[in-house]
Amino acid sequence: MLCLTRPTDPTWADLALADLPTLLRDHAHCEMKAASNALSLAARWPERTEVARALVELAEEELRHFRGVLDELTRRGLTLGKPEVDVYAAELRKAIGVGRKGAPEDPLVDRLLVGAVIEARSCERFRLLCEALRARGDEPELLAFYEELFACEARHYRTFVDLATSVKADAAAVRVRLEEIARAEGRLVEVLGKEPTVHG
Amino acid sequence: MLCLTRPTDPTWADLALADLPTLLRDHAHCEMKAASNALSLAARWPERTEVARALVELAEEELRHFRGVLDELTRRGLTLGKPEVDVYAAELRKAIGVGRKGAPEDPLVDRLLVGAVIEARSCERFRLLCEALRARGDEPELLAFYEELFACEARHYRTFVDLATSVKADAAAVRVRLEEIARAEGRLVEVLGKEPTVHG
Repeated sequence: MLCLTRPTDPTWADLALADLPTLLRDHAHCEMKAASNALSLAARWPERTEVARALVELAEEELRHFRGVLDELTRRGLTLGKPEVDVYAAELRKAIGVGRKGAPEDPLVDRLLVGAVIEARSCERFRLLCEALRARGDEPELLAFYEELFACEARHYRTFVDLATSVKADAAAVRVRLEEIARAEGRLVEVLGKEPTVHG
Repeated sequence: MLCLTRPTDPTWADLALADLPTLLRDHAHCEMKAASNALSLAARWPERTEVARALVELAEEELRHFRGVLDELTRRGLTLGKPEVDVYAAELRKAIGVGRKGAPEDPLVDRLLVGAVIEARSCERFRLLCEALRARGDEPELLAFYEELFACEARHYRTFVDLATSVKADAAAVRVRLEEIARAEGRLVEVLGKEPTVHG
C-alpha cells in the first residue's frame, strides 16, 4: 500500500480497539509530534519559502486532527495524559541514517521522505482500524473520524513526496531513496504491530 | 500597557518600518517559534487536557498568522530566509530563572507567564507599528494586518494569564509572579528597541 513494503500484523487492529484509551492518547500525541516535526523542518530550511508554507499548512491540519482526537477522548471521559513510549519514528530515522553525507539538500529530502513513510504507515493502520470498526458496527462516529483521517494521511504522504521531489529536483533519485527508506521501515515493522498504539 | 513596566524606545517603529524585509522575516519566524513553544508546553504537561487544548488552539492561530506574514513577504517578492538572532525570549527565560524550585506546577506557570509577557510586548509593538503606518498612510493592507494582529496579541496575553491562573489556582500568586516577570522584561527592554525586529 502506497510505498510500504510490509503489511502490519493482521491482529493489530483488534488489539488496538481493545484498548481505545491507549490508542487514542497515543494517537493524539502522534498528531502533536507530527505538527512539531513539520514546524522544525520549516524552521530549519527557511530558504525554501514554499516548502515552509506547505509544512506549516500540514502542521495546522495535524493540530486540527489533534483536537479531533481530543474530542474523542473527552466524549469518553478520558484525559490526554503522558505519551506512550514511541520508538518507531526514532528507530526509523536511525535505521536510514538521516544526516548521511550527500548533497546539501539531502538531509531535508530524507526528513521529508521519512515523513512520507510514516504517513503511509498511519494511512494503512487507519484503514485497518476502519475495517475492524465497520465489522463491529458499534462506533459509527469513531469510524467516520478514522475514515476522514485515512484520506488525509494518504494526501499527506503525497505532499511529503512532492515536497521532496521539488527540493531534490530529481524525481528518479527521490523514488530510489523512498524505496530504501520504505524497506528500512518494513524491517522495523516486522517487530511491531503488538502494541495498542498507532505505530506500536 | 497590559502588564508591561517599560515602554519600547519611541524610535523603534520607524527603524523597523525602514527595513520591512527584516521586520517581516523576523515576524514570520516569531509566529513559528510561538507555535512551537505552545506545542512544546502542551506536550510537556499533557495531564492538563484543557490546557493542552487551549495551547494547541493558540498554536493554530500563530500558524495562521505565520501564513499571513508569508503572504506579505510574497506580495513584496521576498523569501522567508533564516531567522534573525533573537536573544529576547531566551534572555527573558534566563532572567526570571524558569525552573526555580517551587510547587510542581510552577515551571508550567512560569512558562505561561513568560508567554503572556511576550504577547504583551508584541501587542505594544504592533500598536506602535499601526500608529506609524497610519501616519505614513502608504501601506493600508499592512496596517489592516497589524491592526488585526494587535487585537490577537492582546487576546493571547489574556489566554496565557488565564491558563496560568487555572493551573496555579491562586490568582494572587499568579499576579505577583506576573509582575516579577514583567519587571525582568522591563529591564531587558531598556537595552532593546534598536533593531528592526519584533523584539529587537
